[in-house]
Amino acid sequence: MRAARVALRSAAPLAAGGVSSRVPREVERFSRYSPSPLSIKQFLDFGSSNGCERTSFAFLRQELPVRLANILREIDLLPDQLLSTPSVQLVKSWYIQSLMELVEFHQKNPEDHRVLSDFIDTLVIVRNRHHDVVPIMAQGVIEYQDTFRVDLVTNQNIQYFLDRFYMNRISIRMLINQHTLLFDDSTNSGHQQHIGSIDPCCDVVGVVNGRVPGQPIHIVYVPSHLFHILFELFKNAMRATVEHQENNSSLSPVKVTVVLGNEDLTIKISDTGGGVPLRKINFLFSYMYSTAPRPVMDDSRNAPLAGFGYGLPISRLYAKYFQGDLNLYSVPGYGTDAVIYLKALSTESIEKLPVFNKSAFKRYQMGTEADDWCIPSKPKNLVRQSAAV
Amino acid sequence: MRAARVALRSAAPLAAGGVSSRVPREVERFSRYSPSPLSIKQFLDFGSSNGCERTSFAFLRQELPVRLANILREIDLLPDQLLSTPSVQLVKSWYIQSLMELVEFHQKNPEDHRVLSDFIDTLVIVRNRHHDVVPIMAQGVIEYQDTFRVDLVTNQNIQYFLDRFYMNRISIRMLINQHTLLFDDSTNSGHQQHIGSIDPCCDVVGVVNGRVPGQPIHIVYVPSHLFHILFELFKNAMRATVEHQENNSSLSPVKVTVVLGNEDLTIKISDTGGGVPLRKINFLFSYMYSTAPRPVMDDSRNAPLAGFGYGLPISRLYAKYFQGDLNLYSVPGYGTDAVIYLKALSTESIEKLPVFNKSAFKRYQMGTEADDWCIPSKPKNLVRQSAAV
Repeated sequence: MRAARVALRSAAPLAAGGVSSRVPREVERFSRYSPSPLSIKQFLDFGSSNGCERTSFAFLRQELPVRLANILREIDLLPDQLLSTPSVQLVKSWYIQSLMELVEFHQKNPEDHRVLSDFIDTLVIVRNRHHDVVPIMAQGVIEYQDTFRVDLVTNQNIQYFLDRFYMNRISIRMLINQHTLLFDDSTNSGHQQHIGSIDPCCDVVGVVNGRVPGQPIHIVYVPSHLFHILFELFKNAMRATVEHQENNSSLSPVKVTVVLGNEDLTIKISDTGGGVPLRKINFLFSYMYSTAPRPVMDDSRNAPLAGFGYGLPISRLYAKYFQGDLNLYSVPGYGTDAVIYLKALSTESIEKLPVFNKSAFKRYQMGTEADDWCIPSKPKNLVRQSAAV
Repeated sequence: MRAARVALRSAAPLAAGGVSSRVPREVERFSRYSPSPLSIKQFLDFGSSNGCERTSFAFLRQELPVRLANILREIDLLPDQLLSTPSVQLVKSWYIQSLMELVEFHQKNPEDHRVLSDFIDTLVIVRNRHHDVVPIMAQGVIEYQDTFRVDLVTNQNIQYFLDRFYMNRISIRMLINQHTLLFDDSTNSGHQQHIGSIDPCCDVVGVVNGRVPGQPIHIVYVPSHLFHILFELFKNAMRATVEHQENNSSLSPVKVTVVLGNEDLTIKISDTGGGVPLRKINFLFSYMYSTAPRPVMDDSRNAPLAGFGYGLPISRLYAKYFQGDLNLYSVPGYGTDAVIYLKALSTESIEKLPVFNKSAFKRYQMGTEADDWCIPSKPKNLVRQSAAV
């Protein structure tokens, strides 16, 4: 009972969404556990005939606080000026509040049907509370960039954090969606053959072509994730083509190749939209150097009207979430190939999850240091010599 | 004169190529300078009408010891069991000996034609001495791997070292070749329009097609470097095609695309040789996980009869040497694209050189640590929880 009381007390000031830099001991407690990555196979088992709501409940009331706590520890390692922005404080308060509400179920009886339905209600509340996390966190980064000169190393650390933070969020939403879709009788779980959000027989070519039938290639996957990735890549390919060929009478097509290998399902999207200089390729995946126009934010902190240019980095996270990847290969002056890799075998499709440990901690401590390669921009005078830094 | 005497004394025991773990103070002294990267433009200036042998001499007698000393400091940071192999000790002794022989010229008069010709003789001796550095060093790595269990972090450190070591060697050979080709009257410097090994008007399409004429695309570059890279990539593409299509009546062609953009000259080599699983792509650039058969080495330590599977990583170094790059993009089950990026502008083609500094030193000190992402190979039991490492 003690833990429960602590939880309730600590949650109180946060319930109003108030900003608190104090981290309750539950965060420290659950961050000592490392997240437990699930394979798509395991996700399917939860939804199988012998899949049990109580088992899923027992897993989630532990695993969700663990994932929330692990990333909360990293939020606290952000630069003070970023951590102290209203946006980041708000997001942090949501994570603490959600953790607290979920921890309360450790005291409750899985055999009580009321408890199970309350848990589903709480999951829905948590999901809705975190709905705007991406734009709000992005807003915090912009506030930070507008106020402070951000050095290269800090940019790298924030890139490192956001990749882990958004991946963590993808995984939490996946857990919540699976449980609510599988066990919430009040909602129609959609496709009969789907197990929650997973299609055990996902027709990749079908998703690529929309409804145009092609020779089907099937893998076990989350169609909504694949759709998210493909939508982003097609949008970029088509925009590049249109902008590069605006004076042409006709536009050259965007070509798609889908190949199922022994280990990988590969989707290659090739455009002739002029390509991107090698120097700029990495910027396309950067949260800090986003070239997208600043989105309009109102004080009510709703999601912005326009995007933050996070489409590519987050699409890559979706691909990496189940051990796949997403890469861009451009031929500057000609066009760009985007290649998506997904695991062909559901047994190898295992969640890729950040874990807060010594290695992660050290990454945030790395200071500004001289590059270990000579800076090419200014070759030294041939006569004068200067000592190495 | 003092420095000279020190040099001569220290060099004495090494002259016989003897193995010494003692590092003379000259190494420490010259490693305090960081290398001075040259742009291709600067290389051309040395060979221009007002290019002066004495200026090149004055630059090289300082710069070559600096580059030798910088990498010698990193050799000493290798794992003891690797550093103590006869192969690595032999290579190290060559670097010390060459440094000593070059330092002696700090005491000599650039106005003396005899000094200038002696310097050229010394450069040739140094180049010949270091001829087999790559296979000998590779042999040392094999001896080390055969004797000791090498952990992941050590592998990463050795990969880090060899990329820097071989890049350093490419740059030293470039400096030596330019001086000897430009100022050694006894040798015919080959192509009239070449400045040393640089072709101010390198027809990339010509190098790609051999002598078959194509629409020329010109950049300022080192044809021998480009040829080295292309030979390796064509070899790999053709081998993959032949092995993958051995049962076919005809072989599908290897396609090459050459595009000159505003910043980059890009060469894309596409084969349909079946591709490589995503999991294995990085191994192709690894010195430690080379899949090539063990080369035959005899005790005379000549170059091995077979290669070490270093073709790809070293080709990538050649591409990166002047700020370019080399990447492989495979569609497993279908084929592979290899893309070479070279700088389109000679002013941006500046040597990429490793420098020994705090950052480099720290890289070798990194210990074995838990991954900051959950290990996907073994998802934890859903019930039991274990504390994060």
